[in-house]
Amino acid sequence: MGKYVYQLDEVDNPLEIYKLLGNKGAQLSEMMKIGLPVPKAFTITTDACREYIKNNSWPDGLEDELKASVKAMEDKTKKGFGNKSNPLLLSVRSGSYVSMPGMMDTVLNLGLNDEVIQGLVVKTNNERGSYDSYRRFVQMFGDVVMGVKHSSFEAAIHELKNKKGVKLDTELKVEDLKELVKNFKDIIKKESGKEIPTDPLEQLKLSVTAVFGSWNGKRAVTYRRLNNIPDDAGTAVSIQEMVFGNMGNDSGTGVSFTRNPSTGDKEHYGEYLINAQGEDVVAGIRTPKKIDDMKQDLPGPYAELIKVYEKLELHYKDVQDFEFTIENNVLFILQTRNGKRTAQAAIKIAVDMESEGLINQKEAILRVNPDQIEQVMHKQLDPEGKKKAQLIAKGLPASPGAAVGQIAFTAEEAHDKNSAGKKVLLVRTETSPEDIEGMHSAQGILTSRGGMTSHAAVVARGMGKCCVAGCEEVIIDESAKTVKIKDQQLNEDSWISIDGSTGEVFLGQVNMVEPEMSGEFQKLMGWADNHRTLKIRTNSDTPKDTKVAIDFGAEGIGLCRTEHMFFEGERILHVREMILATDVEGRKKALDKLMPIQKGDFKAIFEVLEGKPANIRLIDPPLHEFLPQTEEAIKEVSKDLGIPEEKIKERLEALHEFNPMLGHRGCRLCITYPEIAEMQTRAIIEAACELKKEGKEVKPEIMVPLVGHVNELKLLRELIIKIADETIKNFGVKLDYQVGTMIEIPRACLTAEKIAAEADFFSFGTNDLTQMTFGFSRDDAGKFLNEYYDKKVLAWDPFQRIDECGVGQLMELACKKGREVKKDLKLGICGEHGGNPASIAFCHKLGLNYVSCSPYRVPVARLAAAHAVLKEE
Amino acid sequence: MGKYVYQLDEVDNPLEIYKLLGNKGAQLSEMMKIGLPVPKAFTITTDACREYIKNNSWPDGLEDELKASVKAMEDKTKKGFGNKSNPLLLSVRSGSYVSMPGMMDTVLNLGLNDEVIQGLVVKTNNERGSYDSYRRFVQMFGDVVMGVKHSSFEAAIHELKNKKGVKLDTELKVEDLKELVKNFKDIIKKESGKEIPTDPLEQLKLSVTAVFGSWNGKRAVTYRRLNNIPDDAGTAVSIQEMVFGNMGNDSGTGVSFTRNPSTGDKEHYGEYLINAQGEDVVAGIRTPKKIDDMKQDLPGPYAELIKVYEKLELHYKDVQDFEFTIENNVLFILQTRNGKRTAQAAIKIAVDMESEGLINQKEAILRVNPDQIEQVMHKQLDPEGKKKAQLIAKGLPASPGAAVGQIAFTAEEAHDKNSAGKKVLLVRTETSPEDIEGMHSAQGILTSRGGMTSHAAVVARGMGKCCVAGCEEVIIDESAKTVKIKDQQLNEDSWISIDGSTGEVFLGQVNMVEPEMSGEFQKLMGWADNHRTLKIRTNSDTPKDTKVAIDFGAEGIGLCRTEHMFFEGERILHVREMILATDVEGRKKALDKLMPIQKGDFKAIFEVLEGKPANIRLIDPPLHEFLPQTEEAIKEVSKDLGIPEEKIKERLEALHEFNPMLGHRGCRLCITYPEIAEMQTRAIIEAACELKKEGKEVKPEIMVPLVGHVNELKLLRELIIKIADETIKNFGVKLDYQVGTMIEIPRACLTAEKIAAEADFFSFGTNDLTQMTFGFSRDDAGKFLNEYYDKKVLAWDPFQRIDECGVGQLMELACKKGREVKKDLKLGICGEHGGNPASIAFCHKLGLNYVSCSPYRVPVARLAAAHAVLKEE
Repeated sequence: MGKYVYQLDEVDNPLEIYKLLGNKGAQLSEMMKIGLPVPKAFTITTDACREYIKNNSWPDGLEDELKASVKAMEDKTKKGFGNKSNPLLLSVRSGSYVSMPGMMDTVLNLGLNDEVIQGLVVKTNNERGSYDSYRRFVQMFGDVVMGVKHSSFEAAIHELKNKKGVKLDTELKVEDLKELVKNFKDIIKKESGKEIPTDPLEQLKLSVTAVFGSWNGKRAVTYRRLNNIPDDAGTAVSIQEMVFGNMGNDSGTGVSFTRNPSTGDKEHYGEYLINAQGEDVVAGIRTPKKIDDMKQDLPGPYAELIKVYEKLELHYKDVQDFEFTIENNVLFILQTRNGKRTAQAAIKIAVDMESEGLINQKEAILRVNPDQIEQVMHKQLDPEGKKKAQLIAKGLPASPGAAVGQIAFTAEEAHDKNSAGKKVLLVRTETSPEDIEGMHSAQGILTSRGGMTSHAAVVARGMGKCCVAGCEEVIIDESAKTVKIKDQQLNEDSWISIDGSTGEVFLGQVNMVEPEMSGEFQKLMGWADNHRTLKIRTNSDTPKDTKVAIDFGAEGIGLCRTEHMFFEGERILHVREMILATDVEGRKKALDKLMPIQKGDFKAIFEVLEGKPANIRLIDPPLHEFLPQTEEAIKEVSKDLGIPEEKIKERLEALHEFNPMLGHRGCRLCITYPEIAEMQTRAIIEAACELKKEGKEVKPEIMVPLVGHVNELKLLRELIIKIADETIKNFGVKLDYQVGTMIEIPRACLTAEKIAAEADFFSFGTNDLTQMTFGFSRDDAGKFLNEYYDKKVLAWDPFQRIDECGVGQLMELACKKGREVKKDLKLGICGEHGGNPASIAFCHKLGLNYVSCSPYRVPVARLAAAHAVLKEE
Repeated sequence: MGKYVYQLDEVDNPLEIYKLLGNKGAQLSEMMKIGLPVPKAFTITTDACREYIKNNSWPDGLEDELKASVKAMEDKTKKGFGNKSNPLLLSVRSGSYVSMPGMMDTVLNLGLNDEVIQGLVVKTNNERGSYDSYRRFVQMFGDVVMGVKHSSFEAAIHELKNKKGVKLDTELKVEDLKELVKNFKDIIKKESGKEIPTDPLEQLKLSVTAVFGSWNGKRAVTYRRLNNIPDDAGTAVSIQEMVFGNMGNDSGTGVSFTRNPSTGDKEHYGEYLINAQGEDVVAGIRTPKKIDDMKQDLPGPYAELIKVYEKLELHYKDVQDFEFTIENNVLFILQTRNGKRTAQAAIKIAVDMESEGLINQKEAILRVNPDQIEQVMHKQLDPEGKKKAQLIAKGLPASPGAAVGQIAFTAEEAHDKNSAGKKVLLVRTETSPEDIEGMHSAQGILTSRGGMTSHAAVVARGMGKCCVAGCEEVIIDESAKTVKIKDQQLNEDSWISIDGSTGEVFLGQVNMVEPEMSGEFQKLMGWADNHRTLKIRTNSDTPKDTKVAIDFGAEGIGLCRTEHMFFEGERILHVREMILATDVEGRKKALDKLMPIQKGDFKAIFEVLEGKPANIRLIDPPLHEFLPQTEEAIKEVSKDLGIPEEKIKERLEALHEFNPMLGHRGCRLCITYPEIAEMQTRAIIEAACELKKEGKEVKPEIMVPLVGHVNELKLLRELIIKIADETIKNFGVKLDYQVGTMIEIPRACLTAEKIAAEADFFSFGTNDLTQMTFGFSRDDAGKFLNEYYDKKVLAWDPFQRIDECGVGQLMELACKKGREVKKDLKLGICGEHGGNPASIAFCHKLGLNYVSCSPYRVPVARLAAAHAVLKEE
């Protein structure tokens, strides 16, 4: 075993060193060990890649090891690299320790030149297949290694096919392919200024360097950021003996899953192409055939394939996504990896495999990625709506769910329109890795070419985004910005609706409906609940959202933003009257009108909760947010309240702030206007007392926001307790309530031991805490954050996932200091991070009692909380 | 010794328990010990006050102790409290452990009623003096204990004097005083609804309670906040046998300093009034006589007084400010305390006392309050300007310095106009403790009544504010808002200039000039430099300010804000061109024009520094700050740059931020526009290299602002080093430079161990760090901070003095983490706290290498840094 190169048939425990070999290399080696038909291969480690990236040159010794490994492969295959009569051809593939499909570069058929090709022709006795391989090599090498545009080659093929009057690549004759090789070489010469190298070793070395370099390609970097893959993971390079799926009709190539990755059903699933090489399937250039058709086309290899399915699942105990090639009726497996799957499939597969005895309950829980499962709760097209809508096309059901939007023709367009608040569907002939950002921005994706394993399909499933792929009736004219579907002429203003579970495409906007949870889903959630220790609450301001969350398993409300209720109906008028009042009496008068309304709101929420705790936050936003901003609105409010416009403008002016985030808001409001806190306390406690009188359970928790100094909390806590106790006494009931604070200011964390003395609970407001700890305004940081990701200043968006190193350090400090003073201090989180699995794991590590998240995130949080426990074990 | 009451002639080491006895009580006791003629007294401790405030009732046992103490005093004085033939009268005075002149309440002549007064008349054989004492008692008790308005009594006196056709209180006859007593009692009855109590013990108990309560009076609370006195210090209550200065022309009362508190000269200084009680002098109601006049008026007591001066200074080794009363030619000392003095006097006295051998060098340093000395550097009226200006009046030179402003008639007016950016002089008949905030806001104070020890004079000196007092030619009509000075009629728009060192008042705005430092000042600063370990740098952006700071002793620049240079002359046009450019090329073109100008600026500053280090910060503010904001300005810029107005507005719109404090600024700018950092680095390093070529010393330090993540610094540091090293190489010189960062974001403190690895230095930007740690926007917090002080949420303004508990904790963390990684990491501070003595002491404790402050604060910082060392010892 060398320092940088591993012979894959000689590795003892390949899966243990998968970070070094990359997932692809490790799996090739593993498959060799379990006796699957894998062509000979060796792998250059990720160490070598890291060294290369650091120094921008090959590490010492790598070249010698590479040469020795080629030599060894020559011995094993009994072929010669560059040999003119018995040539060894190689594939060169990238492979990080996590699969990054299509993100980095690959070169196939390496080792060919004008002399070696003659040997290949003789040896394979297949001139056409040989020249097809040669043109593929020149094309890929030109693209990947020499930087010539892919489209230049495609144009040349297209031109030739037109000239010859044929439609498919497979219809091209030997002479045509020879002409293509020549044309391709000319294109390379013209565009890169260089000749394609003829020395096979030179070809190999340049290809390895290109693969190393592709690690820092834009696509790869974006993919890593979106998938939280560390930048220093590096890619390994696997070099394997070529086998040829393009040697005629007894040859072919395909991709298959051991179970259906879309539904999770236990069925053989996949596609293949006769007389083709692997990239033809993935690239979606020809529409492939279903696996089952192989039974007739290639019965021998099909029988072998059936055995491979079983062997793979028994060995890996998970769904495998593998590539195979058939060369003259002989089956080879070129790659396997755990199959990406929809959330729905993931859940079904995990639960099924548990009942099949392949895995246990804990393993089953860990098999489902919490980030992903929100999609099983995604909306579907309303069946009634579908009946009435015009079905205009049908494609492949590539990723489940549904989406409605206007047409975007490019990724940029999708991104821009989405930023402008529009809902769009990305409609493209096919997608490519460059489109990832745009796919993120779209509601869903519709392609006219490519199969279930095409780029669009794979990526959409990973994103949990609805996708209909290979819908060939859809004819797109990107430059004219039109879509023709049969007789329909659509443009960027047209609305369409797609169903990713059926492949249907409808004209117009079809209603969407809530999803139903499968039995497997409920089962898995139950298992998760058995293992998790974190409680899951929800952020909810209405009885309706609260109901949704409770149905999803929420165990209480972690954040009820009272001010969200201020906008509805007549409330806003009273709120404005309060703000515009010039003295305490005026404010109290307006608050008196608000009180019964707020009380009603709280009562309704308490009733839905049926005794589960409700954390209610006192008013938080700066008052100017409640005032009208436009001339027209001011005029209207002036009329409604009988207050001169000038007065309203004066007040607006007086309330103007340079940095409202850091201004007069949160508890600062209640310190200057204690009457607001009084009213809100009274509303909460009266609502609770009235229900108590009816014999119902209520657990109110009153939360003071934006505390930075213990005295703020102390002052308001005294006020709240005074009002609450008075109210309870008046009602003559027994009611337990708690008073605590949101921890969202750095100073609160730093002085948590003081604040804890005045608090029954802490709830981390990680949105604001992140803003202040970083000094980032969430509303403004968009101006530079993308640049930060591009320049690798930040690895992820700290507003989505807790920055453990900085913000997390403050949280840890607060937990420690708080619990030192008050052993049983209740700790929770109500920032949006409360629904983010990585952040939930962190909260679990900190010893929080609960996390709180939006209703649809509740199942995600339940599963993530279980993962946190199981991963700790 | 009781639990709550101490007999002052029985205390062993009164100064050691001054926190219990209050300063007044402790000093009375101390004076008794050294044999000064002090009337008998006992003191109720601050403990009792704290208990009272906590429970709103007297602590158990206090009343018994009080009664026993009165009994003991009766024994010692051989008089009886409430005795009708030989009455003991008492004074009841407040006294915290630090002097709070006039802030809390006092009752004199306590123990009188309609019967006891008869005994006093007989015993003193002075009916007029006795009744004068009685009317004073009723008046003070009514005011202080029963809450009747002071002005009601004053009106009654005024009315009576008019009726009798007299001008002075002393001209009132016995019958008049009897009538006054009656009138006063009626006023009390009418306004409070109660009779004044006749039982002396009841009077005493109520007075003690009133003094306790005055601790939380608005005046006292404000004074404590302004002077950083803890709220829980509490006041002691000293109860002393009354002696009478109002017993005729062989009696009197006065206030004196052992040295001149204005200049520091060694001369007897003070004022007295014949036939008066103490409050007459302080209140400034009659204009008193100079101490030296006593030699003729009361030669016997004067001779005694001279001995008292010597005894006091020899014993206390500091200037004493004492009160005395002469009762029928016998001198009594009623109080002593360290004399408040001007900065100029403090310096002179400290240096003089050192050379007199009274104190040593370290003590001399500690005698001068760093907060105060900025005033000796205050501007003076330009002597040439004075010659040309119209001198319209002359008053007492009550507090040195000079001030120019428009007239404000009330404290509120002064405050409001100052807030609106106007310069005002507070012009009042006399000031009172209610006026403190307004005095703070004014440039200076001018009063028409009262002497050198009047309220206005004492407070102004304490504040380091210029004051001319007792300027009787000034006739103020507050309601009409006019001032008449001889023939001049002035109003609120009129400008006047005052000279607090001469008492002169000029019409209009007289130029001001820089002060000259005295020899004593230089000497003291030299001593301070010998002891301090902190280096002192300055925040300066121009060669001129740098020169001032160096003359004041600055040892380098701690913060040079390059963007301040962006506004001058044609620079701003280039800056705007840069901001409005649509691509890198456009920006670079504009930056190329800026480069030589910035280089010139840096060169000029380096030359002034003569080899002292210069910390230069890269661009910090958000770009929109450099663009025109008004329609008109936009029009002009559009013309100047040939850019359509629409484009400018678009750019302004694009640059708009919701929270600019947390937006696209600081290092974030240089990460998106690296060309700015490149230009600035080039300008700094080229400037340095050119001087190096001339054989001059230069020490540039390049500071990256607003770093929150090590990668920000890493990226920019690499860029800076690349440009700098290239430049140095081109010049062929040897130049050392440093690259470091401002630590002003909480996350930077939390991750300082990572950031330190990329930094040669840290400079704490405590302005922003305070904003983010508290979540306070400095521009907006005014809306609630006053409420925070009133409600005791905050004890002081965290933007003036470092919040050690929160912000300081982050700083400590950053120092510790930074130095763990880099033992010699240079640490400094460049926030405005760098000129605040309490904060400087904290920085010393943290082990910072230097503090940096505005040029005029440099001597303050030098002294404060020495204090920090000496107080540690």
